[in-house]
Amino acid sequence: MANDPTFQLYGYWGSMATYRVRVALILKNIPVNEIPINLGTDEQLTPTFLSVNPEAAVPALIEMGQPPITQSIAILEYLDERYPEPPLLPKDLRGRARVRSLAALIASDTHPLIAPRVRKYLTTRGAFDDAASRDWTSHWLCRGLTAMEARLAGDPNTGIFCHGDQVTIADVCLTSLLVIAKLFKFESPNAPTVNRIVARCELLEAFARANPKHQAGATI
Amino acid sequence: MANDPTFQLYGYWGSMATYRVRVALILKNIPVNEIPINLGTDEQLTPTFLSVNPEAAVPALIEMGQPPITQSIAILEYLDERYPEPPLLPKDLRGRARVRSLAALIASDTHPLIAPRVRKYLTTRGAFDDAASRDWTSHWLCRGLTAMEARLAGDPNTGIFCHGDQVTIADVCLTSLLVIAKLFKFESPNAPTVNRIVARCELLEAFARANPKHQAGATI
Repeated sequence: MANDPTFQLYGYWGSMATYRVRVALILKNIPVNEIPINLGTDEQLTPTFLSVNPEAAVPALIEMGQPPITQSIAILEYLDERYPEPPLLPKDLRGRARVRSLAALIASDTHPLIAPRVRKYLTTRGAFDDAASRDWTSHWLCRGLTAMEARLAGDPNTGIFCHGDQVTIADVCLTSLLVIAKLFKFESPNAPTVNRIVARCELLEAFARANPKHQAGATI
Repeated sequence: MANDPTFQLYGYWGSMATYRVRVALILKNIPVNEIPINLGTDEQLTPTFLSVNPEAAVPALIEMGQPPITQSIAILEYLDERYPEPPLLPKDLRGRARVRSLAALIASDTHPLIAPRVRKYLTTRGAFDDAASRDWTSHWLCRGLTAMEARLAGDPNTGIFCHGDQVTIADVCLTSLLVIAKLFKFESPNAPTVNRIVARCELLEAFARANPKHQAGATI
Protein backbone atom coordinates (compact mmCIF):
# COMPACT_ATOMS: atom_id res chain seq x y z
CA MET A 1 0.00 0.00 0.00
CA ALA A 2 1.45 3.39 -0.99
CA ASN A 3 1.99 6.01 1.69
CA ASP A 4 0.09 8.54 -0.38
CA PRO A 5 -3.55 7.52 0.03
CA THR A 6 -5.54 6.79 -3.12
CA PHE A 7 -8.72 7.15 -1.07
CA GLN A 8 -10.44 10.23 0.31
CA LEU A 9 -13.32 9.86 2.72
CA TYR A 10 -15.85 12.62 3.20
CA GLY A 11 -17.15 12.11 6.70
CA TYR A 12 -18.21 13.61 9.99
CA TRP A 13 -16.73 12.83 13.39
CA GLY A 14 -20.14 12.01 14.95
CA SER A 15 -21.57 10.05 12.01
CA MET A 16 -22.32 6.37 12.64
CA ALA A 17 -22.06 5.55 8.96
CA THR A 18 -18.67 7.27 8.59
CA TYR A 19 -17.41 5.33 11.62
CA ARG A 20 -18.29 2.04 9.89
CA VAL A 21 -16.20 2.91 6.84
CA ARG A 22 -13.34 4.18 9.01
CA VAL A 23 -13.24 0.86 10.91
CA ALA A 24 -13.19 -1.16 7.68
CA LEU A 25 -10.41 0.94 6.15
CA ILE A 26 -8.25 0.51 9.25
CA LEU A 27 -8.99 -3.24 9.51
CA LYS A 28 -7.92 -3.65 5.89
CA ASN A 29 -4.91 -1.36 6.33
CA ILE A 30 -6.03 1.01 3.57
CA PRO A 31 -4.63 4.54 3.98
CA VAL A 32 -7.16 7.34 3.56
CA ASN A 33 -7.44 11.10 3.92
CA GLU A 34 -10.60 12.00 5.78
CA ILE A 35 -12.21 15.30 4.77
CA PRO A 36 -14.60 16.56 7.46
CA ILE A 37 -18.03 17.73 6.36
CA ASN A 38 -19.60 19.58 9.27
CA LEU A 39 -23.16 18.28 9.63
CA GLY A 40 -23.53 20.67 12.59
CA THR A 41 -23.41 23.66 10.22
CA ASP A 42 -25.22 21.91 7.33
CA GLU A 43 -22.07 21.77 5.22
CA GLN A 44 -23.57 18.69 3.51
CA LEU A 45 -26.07 21.06 1.84
CA THR A 46 -23.45 23.24 0.10
CA PRO A 47 -23.29 23.00 -3.72
CA THR A 48 -19.70 21.72 -3.44
CA PHE A 49 -20.72 18.74 -1.36
CA LEU A 50 -23.96 18.13 -3.25
CA SER A 51 -21.81 17.63 -6.35
CA VAL A 52 -20.10 14.79 -4.43
CA ASN A 53 -23.33 13.30 -3.08
CA PRO A 54 -26.71 14.69 -4.22
CA GLU A 55 -28.28 12.95 -1.22
CA ALA A 56 -26.44 15.38 1.11
CA ALA A 57 -25.19 12.58 3.32
CA VAL A 58 -21.86 11.21 4.52
CA PRO A 59 -19.87 9.04 4.06
CA ALA A 60 -18.67 9.33 0.46
CA LEU A 61 -15.53 7.48 -0.54
CA ILE A 62 -13.46 8.76 -3.44
CA GLU A 63 -10.85 6.67 -5.18
CA MET A 64 -8.50 8.75 -7.28
CA GLY A 65 -10.13 9.71 -10.57
CA GLN A 66 -13.33 7.75 -9.92
CA PRO A 67 -16.87 8.83 -9.03
CA PRO A 68 -17.74 8.77 -5.31
CA ILE A 69 -19.17 5.68 -3.65
CA THR A 70 -21.86 6.51 -1.11
CA GLN A 71 -23.87 4.55 1.46
CA SER A 72 -21.88 2.82 4.18
CA ILE A 73 -23.00 -0.74 3.40
CA ALA A 74 -22.23 -0.33 -0.32
CA ILE A 75 -18.78 1.00 0.64
CA LEU A 76 -18.13 -1.90 3.06
CA GLU A 77 -19.13 -4.43 0.38
CA TYR A 78 -16.91 -2.67 -2.18
CA LEU A 79 -13.89 -2.61 0.12
CA ASP A 80 -14.43 -6.27 0.95
CA GLU A 81 -14.56 -7.27 -2.72
CA ARG A 82 -11.58 -5.10 -3.66
CA TYR A 83 -9.39 -5.90 -0.63
CA PRO A 84 -10.52 -9.34 0.53
CA GLU A 85 -8.20 -9.61 3.57
CA PRO A 86 -9.22 -9.69 6.33
CA PRO A 87 -12.72 -10.65 5.11
CA LEU A 88 -15.73 -8.81 6.52
CA LEU A 89 -18.20 -11.45 5.33
CA PRO A 90 -18.09 -15.23 5.82
CA LYS A 91 -17.45 -17.47 2.82
CA ASP A 92 -20.63 -19.62 3.01
CA LEU A 93 -23.81 -18.26 1.46
CA ARG A 94 -26.03 -18.72 4.50
CA GLY A 95 -23.44 -17.13 6.77
CA ARG A 96 -23.22 -14.17 4.40
CA ALA A 97 -26.99 -13.83 4.47
CA ARG A 98 -27.07 -13.92 8.27
CA VAL A 99 -24.36 -11.28 8.56
CA ARG A 100 -25.97 -9.01 5.96
CA SER A 101 -29.34 -9.37 7.70
CA LEU A 102 -27.88 -8.44 11.11
CA ALA A 103 -26.08 -5.48 9.54
CA ALA A 104 -29.29 -4.31 7.86
CA LEU A 105 -31.25 -4.54 11.10
CA ILE A 106 -28.95 -1.77 12.33
CA ALA A 107 -28.08 0.13 9.15
CA SER A 108 -31.53 0.06 7.52
CA ASP A 109 -34.10 -0.42 10.27
CA THR A 110 -32.56 1.47 13.18
CA HIS A 111 -29.94 4.06 12.31
CA PRO A 112 -31.92 6.01 9.64
CA LEU A 113 -34.67 6.70 12.17
CA ILE A 114 -32.33 8.45 14.57
CA ALA A 115 -30.14 10.28 12.07
CA PRO A 116 -29.72 14.05 12.73
CA ARG A 117 -31.88 15.05 9.71
CA VAL A 118 -34.80 13.06 11.13
CA ARG A 119 -34.47 14.47 14.63
CA LYS A 120 -34.27 17.93 13.11
CA TYR A 121 -37.58 17.39 11.25
CA LEU A 122 -39.24 16.21 14.45
CA THR A 123 -38.08 19.17 16.55
CA THR A 124 -39.00 21.73 13.88
CA ARG A 125 -41.90 20.66 11.65
CA GLY A 126 -42.95 17.90 14.05
CA ALA A 127 -43.02 20.20 17.11
CA PHE A 128 -41.32 17.55 19.29
CA ASP A 129 -39.79 19.05 22.42
CA ASP A 130 -36.45 17.83 23.72
CA ALA A 131 -38.00 15.07 25.86
CA ALA A 132 -40.14 13.80 22.97
CA SER A 133 -37.10 13.81 20.70
CA ARG A 134 -35.07 11.76 23.20
CA ASP A 135 -38.02 9.36 23.65
CA TRP A 136 -38.11 8.86 19.90
CA THR A 137 -34.41 8.08 19.74
CA SER A 138 -34.53 5.73 22.74
CA HIS A 139 -37.56 3.94 21.31
CA TRP A 140 -35.90 3.00 18.00
CA LEU A 141 -32.55 2.29 19.62
CA CYS A 142 -34.21 -0.07 22.08
CA ARG A 143 -36.28 -1.72 19.37
CA GLY A 144 -33.20 -2.38 17.23
CA LEU A 145 -30.95 -3.53 20.04
CA THR A 146 -33.62 -5.74 21.62
CA ALA A 147 -34.16 -7.46 18.26
CA MET A 148 -30.39 -7.86 17.83
CA GLU A 149 -30.12 -9.38 21.31
CA ALA A 150 -32.95 -11.84 20.57
CA ARG A 151 -31.33 -12.86 17.30
CA LEU A 152 -27.78 -13.17 18.67
CA ALA A 153 -28.44 -14.70 22.10
CA GLY A 154 -30.10 -17.92 21.00
CA ASP A 155 -28.12 -18.64 17.84
CA PRO A 156 -25.24 -21.13 17.76
CA ASN A 157 -23.68 -19.09 14.92
CA THR A 158 -23.00 -16.27 17.38
CA GLY A 159 -19.43 -16.49 18.67
CA ILE A 160 -16.93 -14.04 20.08
CA PHE A 161 -18.42 -11.68 17.50
CA CYS A 162 -21.88 -11.54 15.86
CA HIS A 163 -20.97 -14.39 13.52
CA GLY A 164 -18.35 -16.79 14.79
CA ASP A 165 -14.96 -15.52 15.85
CA GLN A 166 -14.17 -13.08 13.03
CA VAL A 167 -15.22 -9.46 12.75
CA THR A 168 -17.86 -8.93 10.07
CA ILE A 169 -19.92 -6.00 8.82
CA ALA A 170 -22.54 -7.00 11.43
CA ASP A 171 -20.08 -6.14 14.24
CA VAL A 172 -19.09 -2.92 12.53
CA CYS A 173 -22.74 -1.83 12.25
CA LEU A 174 -23.70 -2.96 15.75
CA THR A 175 -20.75 -1.20 17.35
CA SER A 176 -21.45 2.00 15.37
CA LEU A 177 -24.87 2.20 17.01
CA LEU A 178 -23.64 1.59 20.55
CA VAL A 179 -20.72 3.99 20.23
CA ILE A 180 -23.06 6.81 19.23
CA ALA A 181 -25.63 5.87 21.88
CA LYS A 182 -22.93 6.07 24.56
CA LEU A 183 -21.50 9.31 23.21
CA PHE A 184 -24.83 11.11 23.23
CA LYS A 185 -25.97 9.34 26.43
CA PHE A 186 -29.04 7.72 24.89
CA GLU A 187 -30.68 5.09 27.01
CA SER A 188 -30.03 1.57 25.75
CA PRO A 189 -31.67 -1.67 26.81
CA ASN A 190 -30.23 -4.53 28.83
CA ALA A 191 -28.69 -6.62 26.07
CA PRO A 192 -25.90 -8.78 27.47
CA THR A 193 -24.88 -10.50 24.22
CA VAL A 194 -24.85 -7.21 22.33
CA ASN A 195 -22.85 -5.55 25.10
CA ARG A 196 -20.35 -8.42 25.27
CA ILE A 197 -19.71 -8.31 21.50
CA VAL A 198 -19.39 -4.53 21.36
CA ALA A 199 -16.99 -4.51 24.33
CA ARG A 200 -14.86 -7.11 22.51
CA CYS A 201 -14.86 -5.04 19.30
CA GLU A 202 -13.79 -1.95 21.20
CA LEU A 203 -10.66 -3.79 22.37
CA LEU A 204 -9.50 -3.92 18.74
CA GLU A 205 -7.27 -1.14 17.51
CA ALA A 206 -9.39 -0.42 14.41
CA PHE A 207 -12.52 0.26 16.47
CA ALA A 208 -10.59 2.32 19.02
CA ARG A 209 -8.91 4.49 16.38
CA ALA A 210 -12.19 5.02 14.49
CA ASN A 211 -14.00 6.25 17.62
CA PRO A 212 -15.78 9.58 17.07
CA LYS A 213 -14.04 11.27 19.99
CA HIS A 214 -10.64 10.88 18.27
CA GLN A 215 -11.71 12.54 15.01
CA ALA A 216 -11.10 16.07 13.77
CA GLY A 217 -13.85 18.45 14.85
CA ALA A 218 -15.15 16.27 17.70
CA THR A 219 -16.94 18.33 20.32
CA ILE A 220 -17.54 15.54 22.85
CA MET B 1 -36.72 -26.35 -10.26
CA ALA B 2 -39.11 -28.76 -8.51
CA ASN B 3 -42.82 -28.02 -8.59
CA ASP B 4 -42.97 -28.34 -4.85
CA PRO B 5 -41.41 -25.10 -3.59
CA THR B 6 -38.45 -25.39 -1.24
CA PHE B 7 -39.00 -21.76 -0.25
CA GLN B 8 -41.64 -20.17 1.95
CA LEU B 9 -41.92 -16.42 2.12
CA TYR B 10 -43.57 -14.71 5.06
CA GLY B 11 -44.84 -11.44 3.66
CA TYR B 12 -47.59 -8.86 3.49
CA TRP B 13 -49.38 -7.72 0.36
CA GLY B 14 -48.69 -4.02 1.01
CA SER B 15 -45.08 -4.41 2.18
CA MET B 16 -42.44 -2.76 -0.02
CA ALA B 17 -39.74 -5.08 1.24
CA THR B 18 -41.81 -8.20 0.55
CA TYR B 19 -42.47 -6.92 -2.98
CA ARG B 20 -38.71 -6.73 -3.62
CA VAL B 21 -38.20 -10.37 -2.69
CA ARG B 22 -41.26 -11.43 -4.69
CA VAL B 23 -39.87 -9.70 -7.81
CA ALA B 24 -36.45 -11.38 -7.40
CA LEU B 25 -37.98 -14.83 -6.91
CA ILE B 26 -40.08 -14.47 -10.07
CA LEU B 27 -37.16 -13.05 -12.10
CA LYS B 28 -35.06 -16.05 -11.08
CA ASN B 29 -37.93 -18.48 -11.63
CA ILE B 30 -37.80 -19.79 -8.07
CA PRO B 31 -41.13 -21.26 -6.89
CA VAL B 32 -42.28 -20.12 -3.47
CA ASN B 33 -45.27 -20.37 -1.15
CA GLU B 34 -46.12 -16.97 0.26
CA ILE B 35 -47.57 -16.99 3.78
CA PRO B 36 -49.41 -13.75 4.55
CA ILE B 37 -48.65 -12.02 7.86
CA ASN B 38 -51.30 -9.38 8.40
CA LEU B 39 -49.48 -6.21 9.47
CA GLY B 40 -52.91 -4.52 9.61
CA THR B 41 -53.85 -6.66 12.64
CA ASP B 42 -50.31 -6.74 14.13
CA GLU B 43 -49.89 -10.43 13.31
CA GLN B 44 -46.12 -9.76 13.17
CA LEU B 45 -46.23 -9.36 16.96
CA THR B 46 -47.64 -12.83 17.70
CA PRO B 47 -45.29 -15.28 19.48
CA THR B 48 -45.52 -17.59 16.45
CA PHE B 49 -44.17 -14.97 14.09
CA LEU B 50 -41.66 -13.57 16.60
CA SER B 51 -40.11 -17.04 16.66
CA VAL B 52 -39.56 -16.62 12.89
CA ASN B 53 -38.28 -13.04 13.13
CA PRO B 54 -37.70 -11.44 16.55
CA GLU B 55 -37.66 -8.06 14.81
CA ALA B 56 -41.39 -8.47 14.04
CA ALA B 57 -40.90 -7.52 10.40
CA VAL B 58 -41.53 -9.06 7.00
CA PRO B 59 -40.18 -10.46 4.72
CA ALA B 60 -38.66 -13.65 6.09
CA LEU B 61 -37.58 -16.33 3.63
CA ILE B 62 -37.46 -19.93 4.75
CA GLU B 63 -35.62 -22.60 2.85
CA MET B 64 -36.67 -26.08 3.89
CA GLY B 65 -35.01 -27.08 7.17
CA GLN B 66 -32.97 -23.88 7.46
CA PRO B 67 -33.28 -20.84 9.70
CA PRO B 68 -35.15 -17.86 8.23
CA ILE B 69 -33.35 -15.16 6.27
CA THR B 70 -34.68 -11.68 7.02
CA GLN B 71 -34.08 -8.17 5.62
CA SER B 72 -34.94 -7.69 1.95
CA ILE B 73 -31.45 -6.67 0.80
CA ALA B 74 -29.84 -9.64 2.56
CA ILE B 75 -32.40 -11.91 0.88
CA LEU B 76 -31.78 -10.37 -2.57
CA GLU B 77 -28.01 -10.80 -2.17
CA TYR B 78 -28.51 -14.40 -1.01
CA LEU B 79 -30.77 -15.29 -3.93
CA ASP B 80 -28.32 -13.68 -6.34
CA GLU B 81 -25.38 -15.68 -4.96
CA ARG B 82 -27.33 -18.93 -4.84
CA TYR B 83 -29.14 -18.57 -8.20
CA PRO B 84 -26.86 -16.35 -10.30
CA GLU B 85 -29.09 -16.17 -13.40
CA PRO B 86 -30.33 -13.65 -14.33
CA PRO B 87 -27.89 -11.58 -12.24
CA LEU B 88 -29.24 -8.76 -10.08
CA LEU B 89 -25.83 -7.13 -9.66
CA PRO B 90 -23.29 -6.21 -12.34
CA LYS B 91 -20.01 -8.14 -12.51
CA ASP B 92 -17.57 -5.22 -12.11
CA LEU B 93 -16.77 -3.99 -8.61
CA ARG B 94 -17.54 -0.33 -9.20
CA GLY B 95 -20.83 -1.18 -10.91
CA ARG B 96 -21.77 -3.37 -7.96
CA ALA B 97 -20.96 -0.51 -5.58
CA ARG B 98 -23.08 1.92 -7.60
CA VAL B 99 -26.05 -0.45 -7.67
CA ARG B 100 -25.79 -1.26 -3.96
CA SER B 101 -25.57 2.43 -3.14
CA LEU B 102 -28.67 3.28 -5.20
CA ALA B 103 -30.53 0.38 -3.57
CA ALA B 104 -29.51 1.56 -0.09
CA LEU B 105 -30.67 5.10 -0.80
CA ILE B 106 -34.15 3.60 -1.07
CA ALA B 107 -34.00 0.61 1.28
CA SER B 108 -32.00 2.25 4.09
CA ASP B 109 -32.48 6.00 3.85
CA THR B 110 -36.06 6.29 2.60
CA HIS B 111 -38.28 3.26 3.15
CA PRO B 112 -37.64 2.74 6.90
CA LEU B 113 -38.84 6.29 7.61
CA ILE B 114 -42.24 5.67 6.09
CA ALA B 115 -42.81 2.11 7.27
CA PRO B 116 -46.16 1.50 9.01
CA ARG B 117 -44.57 1.08 12.48
CA VAL B 118 -43.03 4.55 12.19
CA ARG B 119 -46.22 6.24 11.04
CA LYS B 120 -48.03 4.49 13.88
CA TYR B 121 -45.59 5.95 16.44
CA LEU B 122 -46.08 9.42 14.98
CA THR B 123 -49.88 9.30 15.06
CA THR B 124 -50.01 7.86 18.58
CA ARG B 125 -47.06 8.88 20.80
CA GLY B 126 -46.06 11.69 18.43
CA ALA B 127 -49.57 13.20 18.29
CA PHE B 128 -49.31 13.76 14.51
CA ASP B 129 -52.71 14.27 12.90
CA ASP B 130 -53.50 12.77 9.51
CA ALA B 131 -52.19 15.79 7.58
CA ALA B 132 -48.92 15.85 9.54
CA SER B 133 -48.49 12.13 8.98
CA ARG B 134 -48.98 12.52 5.21
CA ASP B 135 -46.55 15.49 5.19
CA TRP B 136 -43.97 13.31 6.91
CA THR B 137 -44.35 10.54 4.36
CA SER B 138 -44.26 12.94 1.40
CA HIS B 139 -41.21 14.69 2.78
CA TRP B 140 -39.05 11.54 2.97
CA LEU B 141 -40.43 10.12 -0.27
CA CYS B 142 -39.57 13.36 -2.06
CA ARG B 143 -36.15 13.57 -0.46
CA GLY B 144 -35.28 10.01 -1.54
CA LEU B 145 -36.70 10.26 -5.04
CA THR B 146 -35.15 13.68 -5.70
CA ALA B 147 -31.75 12.33 -4.68
CA MET B 148 -32.28 9.26 -6.90
CA GLU B 149 -33.22 11.50 -9.83
CA ALA B 150 -30.10 13.65 -9.33
CA ARG B 151 -27.90 10.57 -9.19
CA LEU B 152 -29.49 8.79 -12.16
CA ALA B 153 -30.12 11.70 -14.53
CA GLY B 154 -26.56 12.88 -15.00
CA ASP B 155 -24.77 9.55 -14.92
CA PRO B 156 -23.66 7.76 -18.11
CA ASN B 157 -24.01 4.43 -16.26
CA THR B 158 -27.77 4.91 -16.19
CA GLY B 159 -29.39 3.06 -19.07
CA ILE B 160 -32.79 1.58 -19.74
CA PHE B 161 -32.65 0.66 -16.07
CA CYS B 162 -30.81 2.23 -13.10
CA HIS B 163 -27.54 0.63 -14.17
CA GLY B 164 -27.22 -0.13 -17.85
CA ASP B 165 -29.78 -2.29 -19.59
CA GLN B 166 -30.22 -5.09 -17.06
CA VAL B 167 -32.51 -5.15 -14.06
CA THR B 168 -30.59 -4.90 -10.76
CA ILE B 169 -31.50 -4.66 -7.10
CA ALA B 170 -31.49 -0.86 -7.57
CA ASP B 171 -34.49 -1.14 -9.94
CA VAL B 172 -36.23 -3.55 -7.62
CA CYS B 173 -35.84 -1.16 -4.67
CA LEU B 174 -36.74 1.96 -6.65
CA THR B 175 -39.86 0.38 -8.11
CA SER B 176 -40.95 -0.90 -4.68
CA LEU B 177 -41.05 2.67 -3.42
CA LEU B 178 -43.00 4.06 -6.37
CA VAL B 179 -45.50 1.20 -6.41
CA ILE B 180 -46.38 1.83 -2.77
CA ALA B 181 -46.45 5.62 -3.26
CA LYS B 182 -48.94 5.20 -6.11
CA LEU B 183 -51.04 2.68 -4.23
CA PHE B 184 -51.46 4.89 -1.18
CA LYS B 185 -51.64 8.07 -3.28
CA PHE B 186 -48.62 9.74 -1.69
CA GLU B 187 -47.38 12.80 -3.49
CA SER B 188 -44.16 12.16 -5.38
CA PRO B 189 -41.83 14.68 -7.00
CA ASN B 190 -41.25 15.38 -10.68
CA ALA B 191 -38.50 12.87 -11.42
CA PRO B 192 -38.47 12.02 -15.14
CA THR B 193 -35.58 9.53 -15.09
CA VAL B 194 -37.00 7.72 -12.07
CA ASN B 195 -40.45 7.62 -13.65
CA ARG B 196 -39.10 6.35 -16.98
CA ILE B 197 -37.17 3.51 -15.31
CA VAL B 198 -40.05 2.49 -13.07
CA ALA B 199 -42.49 2.50 -16.02
CA ARG B 200 -40.06 0.22 -17.91
CA CYS B 201 -39.78 -2.16 -14.95
CA GLU B 202 -43.54 -2.36 -14.64
CA LEU B 203 -43.73 -3.68 -18.21
CA LEU B 204 -41.86 -6.78 -17.07
CA GLU B 205 -43.91 -9.77 -15.99
CA ALA B 206 -42.03 -10.21 -12.69
CA PHE B 207 -42.85 -6.69 -11.53
CA ALA B 208 -46.45 -6.95 -12.70
CA ARG B 209 -47.05 -10.27 -10.96
CA ALA B 210 -45.41 -9.05 -7.73
CA ASN B 211 -47.64 -5.96 -7.54
CA PRO B 212 -49.33 -5.57 -4.14
CA LYS B 213 -52.82 -5.40 -5.64
CA HIS B 214 -52.52 -8.96 -6.94
CA GLN B 215 -51.57 -10.49 -3.60
CA ALA B 216 -53.70 -12.39 -1.09
CA GLY B 217 -55.34 -10.06 1.42
CA ALA B 218 -54.96 -6.89 -0.67
CA THR B 219 -57.54 -4.29 0.27
CA ILE B 220 -56.71 -1.74 -2.45
